[in-house]
Order: sequence, then C-alpha cells, then structure tokens
Amino acid sequence: MEQKVTLKELAKQLNVSISTVSKALNDSPEISPRTRERIKEAAQLRHYIPSSLGRNLKSMQTRTIGVIIPDILPHFFAKALYGMEAKATEMGYRLIICISNESLKKEKESIETLISGSVDGIVMSISQETQAKKQIQHLLDLKEYNVPLVLFDRVLAGIPCDKVSINDSLQAEQATMELISTGCRKVAYATGIPFTSVDDQRRDGYMEAAKRQKMKNRIIEFTHDKFPHQKFLKLLQEEKIDGILASDELSAVQVTKCILNAGFRIPEDISVIGFTNGVMGENFRPSLSVIDQQEEEQGKLALETAIDRIENKLPDEFMDYKLKTTIIHRDSTRKV
Amino acid sequence: MEQKVTLKELAKQLNVSISTVSKALNDSPEISPRTRERIKEAAQLRHYIPSSLGRNLKSMQTRTIGVIIPDILPHFFAKALYGMEAKATEMGYRLIICISNESLKKEKESIETLISGSVDGIVMSISQETQAKKQIQHLLDLKEYNVPLVLFDRVLAGIPCDKVSINDSLQAEQATMELISTGCRKVAYATGIPFTSVDDQRRDGYMEAAKRQKMKNRIIEFTHDKFPHQKFLKLLQEEKIDGILASDELSAVQVTKCILNAGFRIPEDISVIGFTNGVMGENFRPSLSVIDQQEEEQGKLALETAIDRIENKLPDEFMDYKLKTTIIHRDSTRKV
Repeated sequence: MEQKVTLKELAKQLNVSISTVSKALNDSPEISPRTRERIKEAAQLRHYIPSSLGRNLKSMQTRTIGVIIPDILPHFFAKALYGMEAKATEMGYRLIICISNESLKKEKESIETLISGSVDGIVMSISQETQAKKQIQHLLDLKEYNVPLVLFDRVLAGIPCDKVSINDSLQAEQATMELISTGCRKVAYATGIPFTSVDDQRRDGYMEAAKRQKMKNRIIEFTHDKFPHQKFLKLLQEEKIDGILASDELSAVQVTKCILNAGFRIPEDISVIGFTNGVMGENFRPSLSVIDQQEEEQGKLALETAIDRIENKLPDEFMDYKLKTTIIHRDSTRKV
Repeated sequence: MEQKVTLKELAKQLNVSISTVSKALNDSPEISPRTRERIKEAAQLRHYIPSSLGRNLKSMQTRTIGVIIPDILPHFFAKALYGMEAKATEMGYRLIICISNESLKKEKESIETLISGSVDGIVMSISQETQAKKQIQHLLDLKEYNVPLVLFDRVLAGIPCDKVSINDSLQAEQATMELISTGCRKVAYATGIPFTSVDDQRRDGYMEAAKRQKMKNRIIEFTHDKFPHQKFLKLLQEEKIDGILASDELSAVQVTKCILNAGFRIPEDISVIGFTNGVMGENFRPSLSVIDQQEEEQGKLALETAIDRIENKLPDEFMDYKLKTTIIHRDSTRKV
C-alpha cells in the first residue's frame, strides 16, 4: 500500500517552498510555466493527493475545525471540548479532534492528519514536550497551508496566532491572598502537574503573594498516581500549614482527602482552594472551593475566534484574550 | 463558497447506488462505458472532490481510524479514548475523534466528516437518540464506502459489524447479589442515565437478581444536574434501604454524598456499588466500591478489532466480544 505524499514532502523533494508547490498546482501566474510543469509532473509521479484541494484552491470550505488537545483524561479538556462542540454546532461548523498525548511527535502527526483532512482551521493546547523543547516549527508551518491556528489554555509566546487563556499567575496570586484574608497565615502550594506552563505560572502567582505578605514559600510537588501522604502530613504538621492552594482539581481532592483522613477539619483547621471547576470538586464532601477557569468559555471563545479568523472577520493583528476567572466559594474555605 | 458534494449526494442526484458512482469514477469494467461517462461528467460539474480517493481506489490507506463518542464529559469515554490512543500508537495508526452529543443528526454528520476525511475504519458508541429511534441506515451505509465499523459500549443488534461491550445485565445482577451476600436485604437501583441501552440492561440485571431473591424492586431515576435529595431520602427511610446499585460513577457519588449528609453511615448502614471505575469514585471519601467496566480495555480491543478488520486479519463473520468485568472492593461496601 502506498502512502500519500504530502505537500510538504513534495516541496522538500523539489527543494522549493510549500507555497510554491501549492501555487504551481493551482496554476498561479506567480510561478513560471516551466516550474509549474516540473512541479505538476512530480506531483503526478509521486501520487500526490490534493485532499487539501479545497484549501489550496480557496474556492471551497469544509466548515470543519480541527482540535488538538494534549490529554483526554483531565476534566478541564473535556469541558473545553464540550464548549467547543456547542459553539461549532451553533455556528454551523463541525469538529474533529486529535490527542497529542503530551508528545511533540504526536502533535506534529495530528497537524498533518488534520491538514490532509482539509480542516479550515486548528484550535489547540500545546503538549508538555512542545513546551519543554520549545520546538514550534510545525506550528509556524501552518501559515504556508493558510490554516489559521488558535492556541488555548497552554499558549506560547513566539507563535504568531490568536490566543485564548486565563491569567494563571494573577489568579493564583488572588486565590492565595483570599486564603490569607480569611485568616490563613501559612499557605502552601501543592502541585500534581509540575513541569507544565500553567503550573509555572500558578507557582509564580503564589510566590508573588507570599513575597508581598512576607510569608515563607512552601511548595509540595507530586504526581497524581503517587500522592505522598507521609511527606505531605509531615509538612502540614512541621510547618503548621493552615491553607492550601492546589494546582488542579485532582490535586485538590487528594490533598483534602489526606487532610481529613489525618483528623484535621476543613475549613476550620485548614482551608483548600484548587484550580478548575469540575464535577469532582463540586461533588466532593466537603464540596471544594475552586478557581473557575471558564473551561467551557475558553473552548467557546477559542472556537469562535478560529471561525471569525477563517471568515475574515478579525483585524490583521492577532487577538490575545485573557478570560477573567472567579473563585467559587464552597465548603473547603472559611467565609470572608 | 461552494460546499463539497459527497459521493452519496452524487449517487442520489443520478439515481444510482453509491457503489456505482464509486466504481464509475474508478473506471471499473463492471460499469458500462456510457454510465461511467455520465457519472464522471456529473462529478466534474458538481465539483465532486474525491477526497475519499484513497478509499475508493483501495490502493492507499490513510492509517487513520475515526472514533465517534456520544458525550465527552463522562470519564468512561475519556478512559476508552485513552486506551484507543495507546493502541493506535502501538499499531502505527492515528485517531481522529468526533462527538455526536447524543444526537442522531450529529452522528450522521460525524460519519460524513470522517468518511470525507478518508478514514480507514470507524469505531463508535451510538448516541441516545439513535438508540431511541432505532434509525441505523447511516450505519448500514458504511458498507457502501467499504469502511469497517466497530461498535463499543453502546451496541445495537441488527447492525452487521464487529462489537465490543460488557455484559451489563449480568454484571448488574452479580453486583446486586454481592450486596445481598454481604447482608443487604433491601437493595435499590439508582440511575442518573435513564433511557440509555446500558441503563436498560443494568436495570434488567438488577430486577433479575431482585426476582431471584424475592426482593421488591426499588428504582429511583434522576438527572445528574438535579439530584432529588428529598425524594431519595424519603425512599431510603420509608423503604429502609440498606444497599444501592448506582448506574454510573457520578450517580454513585451523588447518592453517597446524600446518604452521608443525612447522617447514615457507609457501609455500616447502607452499602453502595456503582458502575465505572473512575478517578472520582477512587478518590471519594469513602472510596467507592465499583464495577470495573474495563474502559481502557474496551477502547483498546475496539481499536484493535477495527485495525484487524481493515487489514483482513479477521474471519468473515463478525466478532461480538463481551469483556469480563470485576468488582473492585473499596470502602463503600461491607466485607464478604
């Protein structure tokens, strides 16, 4: 079975740019007749399938948006997708979704898959590996295909595209200040998602508040599948922690469960606020106070921005939306 | 902007079958030269884009599997997708995912989108509306496109395709019997997912066990966003319920929370078992005893079956896998 040759591979083989290939195949007068012939012959020989014909000709739209998320398990992404799906239906578009599984390689493959499936635009949250390695060429290449890109939640500076996110750092700072305003004096930051850009920013916000309040930084890192009960309880007791800011929903639940199992009361002895307003925190006992990251709204706005960009309804300069978040007060924090 | 005309629309306009159009466009000798010409002309006139060229020619594979899930929010589907993604990567395939949002119309659209994106096969769990209306023509049509279909979790008899599911009815019966064997005498079935095929089967299994034990049927139905606290407590007290089988993870959590808030003890006064082994039940306090539906395994097996079918590694007759499930005993049930 032969594999499709992509526009990119064809361009590489011919040592010309992707847009040259695209223009040649579309008989653009910008390309000399001789080059056009050469490229067309090569395309035929190499069985190039113009499945992105609609895109290249710009005469047809598929009304399909491709979405790439880094991980399917967190409730955050499920809710963002839920919002996107609603907005797509409302605006007469369809979604196809790929999962990058936090891998740069799979992220690149997902982009290829979506482009060869002729999506009109791509909405994505970048993978941990892409963030760590800062390799973004595959995202810059989208310009050649004339496929607008919108980044949401995990965004990176240096990628010229529309962006939708929340101000994680500011929000973490405010949540820490709020714990302090309800009487907490020794607030710790507990993170189950170290090495992500959102964690970096939330940690920065926490440390900023700690600095302002001349409070010592107390940070505990772990992975969700191995919550360090003993180490955490030791920190609680030795440092007399009375407030916790948790990096995400599952971390907040794990911290709360460990605190209650050790015989402390929530919120009387220790208050907890966590990022993400999910079904788990809402239904936990006690119900958790959370930072509402507007997951659905982020999804909706990202999708709407992609469609508006596709339909040329936005100014040339890129949008950089920062959604306002709020704290939802439930039973894991004291009243102000 | 013009829309793509699909193979199906073209066939309808010409009043011939989809496979006739497909064969004609591929110069099949099975179709008379005159008909071939007529179809090709119409295809050109109507701007038919053979993006499913690879499929029709059968000379190329995209190594892409399309997945359609009915709802992105339940943890069950997230875990199934997680399993599929792992298996796809292992076998050198890619996934693209669509959400039908429990709607027949969106399910049909998703199939169109996936087919025009040239997937090699489709793995899906059918929408509530499709199940309720029993309209399955769009699924039968897949045969014309030569796209193998694998149904998982929510399957329907009457669709000739490979299937992967668990025996919901047997499992509900066994879980009910298990509650009885640990001393429960008045077991109720609490469902937050009425009108789904899995609920029907779980309810049947519960009623079968009740019948065998000469125990009265006690069933409470609700929707997740409006848990009926008062009605549920009234049932608990009037009927002296001492065991609950819950239809799904969130229902189990909602039931447990309501019971504890009313001052009953779990499992001393009332035991709870719920379907689905998710992160919410595992991290609840007390941790919930659950029926492990092998979400990841279902996803993996469904995907592997699709690939094996595509690669002609299966016998002609369709597979109907029923995965064995187990009960995970945690703190919401008494020891046997």
